[in-house]
Amino acid sequence: MRALRLHKPYEFHIHDEPIPQPQPGWAQIQIKSVGVCASDVHWYKDGRIGNTVMSDPIILGHEASGVITALGEGVDSLKVGDRVAIEPAKPCMRCEFCLSGHPNVCPGAPFFGTPPTDGCFCDYIVWPAELAIKIPDSVSFDAAAMIEPLAVGDYAVELSQIVPGDTVAIFGAGAIGLSTLQAAKLAGASKIIISDPIQARREMALKIGATEAIEPSEVRNAVNATTSARGIDIAFECSGSEEAVCECCEIARILGKVMILGIPDGDTYPFAASASRRKQLSAIFVRRSNLNTERCIEYVAEGKMDVKPYASHHFTLEQTKEAMELAITRGDGLIRAIIAVNE
Amino acid sequence: MRALRLHKPYEFHIHDEPIPQPQPGWAQIQIKSVGVCASDVHWYKDGRIGNTVMSDPIILGHEASGVITALGEGVDSLKVGDRVAIEPAKPCMRCEFCLSGHPNVCPGAPFFGTPPTDGCFCDYIVWPAELAIKIPDSVSFDAAAMIEPLAVGDYAVELSQIVPGDTVAIFGAGAIGLSTLQAAKLAGASKIIISDPIQARREMALKIGATEAIEPSEVRNAVNATTSARGIDIAFECSGSEEAVCECCEIARILGKVMILGIPDGDTYPFAASASRRKQLSAIFVRRSNLNTERCIEYVAEGKMDVKPYASHHFTLEQTKEAMELAITRGDGLIRAIIAVNE
Amino acid sequence: MRALRLHKPYEFHIHDEPIPQPQPGWAQIQIKSVGVCASDVHWYKDGRIGNTVMSDPIILGHEASGVITALGEGVDSLKVGDRVAIEPAKPCMRCEFCLSGHPNVCPGAPFFGTPPTDGCFCDYIVWPAELAIKIPDSVSFDAAAMIEPLAVGDYAVELSQIVPGDTVAIFGAGAIGLSTLQAAKLAGASKIIISDPIQARREMALKIGATEAIEPSEVRNAVNATTSARGIDIAFECSGSEEAVCECCEIARILGKVMILGIPDGDTYPFAASASRRKQLSAIFVRRSNLNTERCIEYVAEGKMDVKPYASHHFTLEQTKEAMELAITRGDGLIRAIIAVNE
Amino acid sequence: MRALRLHKPYEFHIHDEPIPQPQPGWAQIQIKSVGVCASDVHWYKDGRIGNTVMSDPIILGHEASGVITALGEGVDSLKVGDRVAIEPAKPCMRCEFCLSGHPNVCPGAPFFGTPPTDGCFCDYIVWPAELAIKIPDSVSFDAAAMIEPLAVGDYAVELSQIVPGDTVAIFGAGAIGLSTLQAAKLAGASKIIISDPIQARREMALKIGATEAIEPSEVRNAVNATTSARGIDIAFECSGSEEAVCECCEIARILGKVMILGIPDGDTYPFAASASRRKQLSAIFVRRSNLNTERCIEYVAEGKMDVKPYASHHFTLEQTKEAMELAITRGDGLIRAIIAVNE
Repeated sequence: MRALRLHKPYEFHIHDEPIPQPQPGWAQIQIKSVGVCASDVHWYKDGRIGNTVMSDPIILGHEASGVITALGEGVDSLKVGDRVAIEPAKPCMRCEFCLSGHPNVCPGAPFFGTPPTDGCFCDYIVWPAELAIKIPDSVSFDAAAMIEPLAVGDYAVELSQIVPGDTVAIFGAGAIGLSTLQAAKLAGASKIIISDPIQARREMALKIGATEAIEPSEVRNAVNATTSARGIDIAFECSGSEEAVCECCEIARILGKVMILGIPDGDTYPFAASASRRKQLSAIFVRRSNLNTERCIEYVAEGKMDVKPYASHHFTLEQTKEAMELAITRGDGLIRAIIAVNE
Repeated sequence: MRALRLHKPYEFHIHDEPIPQPQPGWAQIQIKSVGVCASDVHWYKDGRIGNTVMSDPIILGHEASGVITALGEGVDSLKVGDRVAIEPAKPCMRCEFCLSGHPNVCPGAPFFGTPPTDGCFCDYIVWPAELAIKIPDSVSFDAAAMIEPLAVGDYAVELSQIVPGDTVAIFGAGAIGLSTLQAAKLAGASKIIISDPIQARREMALKIGATEAIEPSEVRNAVNATTSARGIDIAFECSGSEEAVCECCEIARILGKVMILGIPDGDTYPFAASASRRKQLSAIFVRRSNLNTERCIEYVAEGKMDVKPYASHHFTLEQTKEAMELAITRGDGLIRAIIAVNE
Repeated sequence: MRALRLHKPYEFHIHDEPIPQPQPGWAQIQIKSVGVCASDVHWYKDGRIGNTVMSDPIILGHEASGVITALGEGVDSLKVGDRVAIEPAKPCMRCEFCLSGHPNVCPGAPFFGTPPTDGCFCDYIVWPAELAIKIPDSVSFDAAAMIEPLAVGDYAVELSQIVPGDTVAIFGAGAIGLSTLQAAKLAGASKIIISDPIQARREMALKIGATEAIEPSEVRNAVNATTSARGIDIAFECSGSEEAVCECCEIARILGKVMILGIPDGDTYPFAASASRRKQLSAIFVRRSNLNTERCIEYVAEGKMDVKPYASHHFTLEQTKEAMELAITRGDGLIRAIIAVNE
Repeated sequence: MRALRLHKPYEFHIHDEPIPQPQPGWAQIQIKSVGVCASDVHWYKDGRIGNTVMSDPIILGHEASGVITALGEGVDSLKVGDRVAIEPAKPCMRCEFCLSGHPNVCPGAPFFGTPPTDGCFCDYIVWPAELAIKIPDSVSFDAAAMIEPLAVGDYAVELSQIVPGDTVAIFGAGAIGLSTLQAAKLAGASKIIISDPIQARREMALKIGATEAIEPSEVRNAVNATTSARGIDIAFECSGSEEAVCECCEIARILGKVMILGIPDGDTYPFAASASRRKQLSAIFVRRSNLNTERCIEYVAEGKMDVKPYASHHFTLEQTKEAMELAITRGDGLIRAIIAVNE
């Protein structure tokens, strides 16, 4: 099969590798669609995220969908031919965090495309059967690949303990920001202000339900106008910008919340000191998603959420480098680049 | 009466001013003891804290106790001669925050020694009667002045939602750090690691109930040893150091909490990016105290908390500049400098 | 003016009384529409609710709307001619509960139509101006009178800490049950099963957004079918039936919640012992509404909630006894009887 | 070995049965001390608790300690000769409740002495090794058997979200009530009023740290006196009395909490209707304990909690019937009857 490996920053090679076979309890999945996430781009550019550094050539890609092509012994929950969305993390289900309802923070859980665990930019993977979630026929492979970022936004909104009527501001209208927007809307947010420097993303946000979609520099004024200067109830940082972290503190209301999803280039998240202290803000740093996948598949199947428009650009496996370059420049109105591995 | 005013950074002058008279519902209080808080030192050195800048000469000092010397019309709750601790903030009791149980974040609430509100480095003040809290005879004026920082620590622990058995680390063993320590102990913390560069403070912390009292640079190892590398349940930043903010993120356990009480010199609190995100930390920036004063007076009266040792050094009103200079250098084993205004 | 007073159970008399004049800060309101609440019916039948017993003849009615006809000194927030919904409770705004964000439990707060406070079955009332909430032209007087029960349902859902995707069961499809249904839907409930013995109410519930509307005896089976026998996330008791309290315990999932809004005839709420303990249920007894009125007016104005259909039957002030009798029998597909005081 | 089986209400027989052998991952434990819990007494008297009914002769007893006498394959955490406290429930660790930090509500988890799972009134048991918790030498076998009720009280206090300074009332000063008392004290409760009809229990409660220990009928007045008629912050029902459930509602403050631990004779917990609704009470029905065992062993080892005095009366295995009879009458100042199975 084909396996696209990153050898060092900016350098991919296609390899011909044996198709992996499923052990008992696992499934073999032919990959269909894979999204290119901001973290894939971090690996592609820098060969590292924070303290984690790649060494051996690695297969990236973790926002993936596919078709079951073989099953290991003892798997009853799936059958060959099933169409599935794939959970990219493999928590141990035995540590104190897995056992307290937080498998998303299981330390050392293998995660697709994070060293040393190969990801999904290849023809076939094997993975525990319970991490391949069946999707209805009405959900496309592209949509199924987008369930992963959708679940991240859904989880962030859940963690924020939003209540109906809350006002929300979101920095970044990529797949994570748009997913946060949809989850906030479903939870009854009364006003949702979203910002992004890219016009196409702002237009998408408006279609999906934003009250306002503006340039990041305009957020402070917009929040003041919308809330009569009271400040926003919950601010979500989904852009990876350090300025946005500070800005979240400035626009939050007294006793407001700042939810951090973005991954910055630098080593710290700088919180505005005076604003944070004077307003007694709370901040939560969000780690991936947490048991939100099945719920998000239902939302998409029922039409309560829509991820089809995220897939703004398509590439073949061989064109992944071009997809990465487009993701870096965020050109051409990109929302999410999709690698269509097997049509 | 004497009133000590800061005219510009490093420059105090004593003025002879008329004794203020209480309006209806207010009390006139002869000041006895006033603590020198880190925020007083910020004003003394810089003439500003964050965005708030002094203009006219101002009387500093907000950790105060005294004796009732006159009462405005309609005050039933106090009588002349009552010994009192003084709440330094005057919330409006009508805004949404006052009415939702959070007068501590009332925007624009006058606060002693914060422009344009004069503080307590003077012989007499007037203040609403309900903000002068009667203390029992067993509580000294020095102790009563220390109720204010004690309440701040008590509130921070309350906000942290600590549960018995939790492990705690505290950066800074000044009056705020020691108060946090005592409140955490009372709430059933199983281990309390506190750090400070000053040996006298570390010794005090051990007397008051710390499990370990160490240099800040040793905290990471101590937490690892104490928690078998699991990390601390709750980290309190009470030192104003930016390094300590980052260090709180590093030592916190997965899903741990970081409580921020210290006021940094810089404009931001830098949270360690990888650690905060990977462990899904929560942070709360603590604003003063919130309805903790009466409870803390009871704790001190019952011997459950002890603030006597905070008052490590005494000065007259005329010696306030020397007290400030000592507070800047943190020399001579200083915990809290007390201005003994009227013996 | 006309004032309808209950002299003893089942006995109303119309009196000719002077029109009350507003004191400073108060408003005089000409009453337009008043709903007949289950608690009004309790007074009409029994002359008491729980331990509170009527003595002097009293004016009932607390779900009211009207028009400002005069203003006491110092009222800036309203003008003569303004159309308003009326908050029926007058909390003190000084006790610890008012000051902690819970004016709804202010002990001894006067409440319309609860001895000794006269209510709204009359031509004019006077009330503090801040308790008369302006409504937009698009909201009818009937709808404005229904804001009160709508706010109760909205508050119950808020208190339940529902999260999007939760399943909900509601006993009782009167005005309170239907309001709970609408609030739960807005908060993202995935399935809402509601029950009532009256067919017209069930049909209304389906129009308003219920997933299923059934007889109370069918709830257990419906919950099992809908949740694959897992049980319901949140059960709301809005019927006043003691059997329904027990049934809430039976249908709740493990760690589920039971929210109690209904007022039973008996002296106790009987919780099913085995089910409550085995599943570690939580229960909250809901007291009126709490700062939900303005939000609910907005929801109605924006079309997110709809209370028009609650007003199923109209009566004149002189016909109030007939309205009460209909409410007792719940005949003719009654949802809410409205007293149209001044057309 | 000896195995004491209940054949029908009031009828025990000693059987000679083979010593069970541990499967892989399990331990064989020689039983030392077993407490006689109120639920054992329910089985003894009625042959049922709620809907659960015994059929075959069953070995009761679940508050147990012992010594490891053999180990199944693959057990590293224990060795023969280790002294252990025993967790009586065997949660599946795979259901949604086990995986969300609540193994205490795992449906269908086998529990010692609850049909069809035999308990500890016998010489030897086998049980998964991770459910046998090593105790230090300083903790006696009697004390170790009392860790189970101690953990129940500790969990109830944890669930109540008590904060330091809260006032507490407890109905029942048996092993559960006394454990709740100790946990509340450790969490910083300011006043603890406990009630029991038995004088010896009241005396014990005072020794262990109660502020007041009184007859149940005196609680209402005591709470009023202690709280200046404000009401108690948290009421714990640990007596199994239905009157006490109602009384908890009456003594709780506005927005107070009622924690239900007791098992009543009847089918319902009757909550006082007016009081519950008017004060907007919250109630939680507590299910066993939840991961509190290790913490409680530490507390006992460190001297922060003391369970030695619970063991007021000792019996041999053959005298278990006498122990049951004494437990029914609660005569002779009984706190907990201990079956000393192997001296």
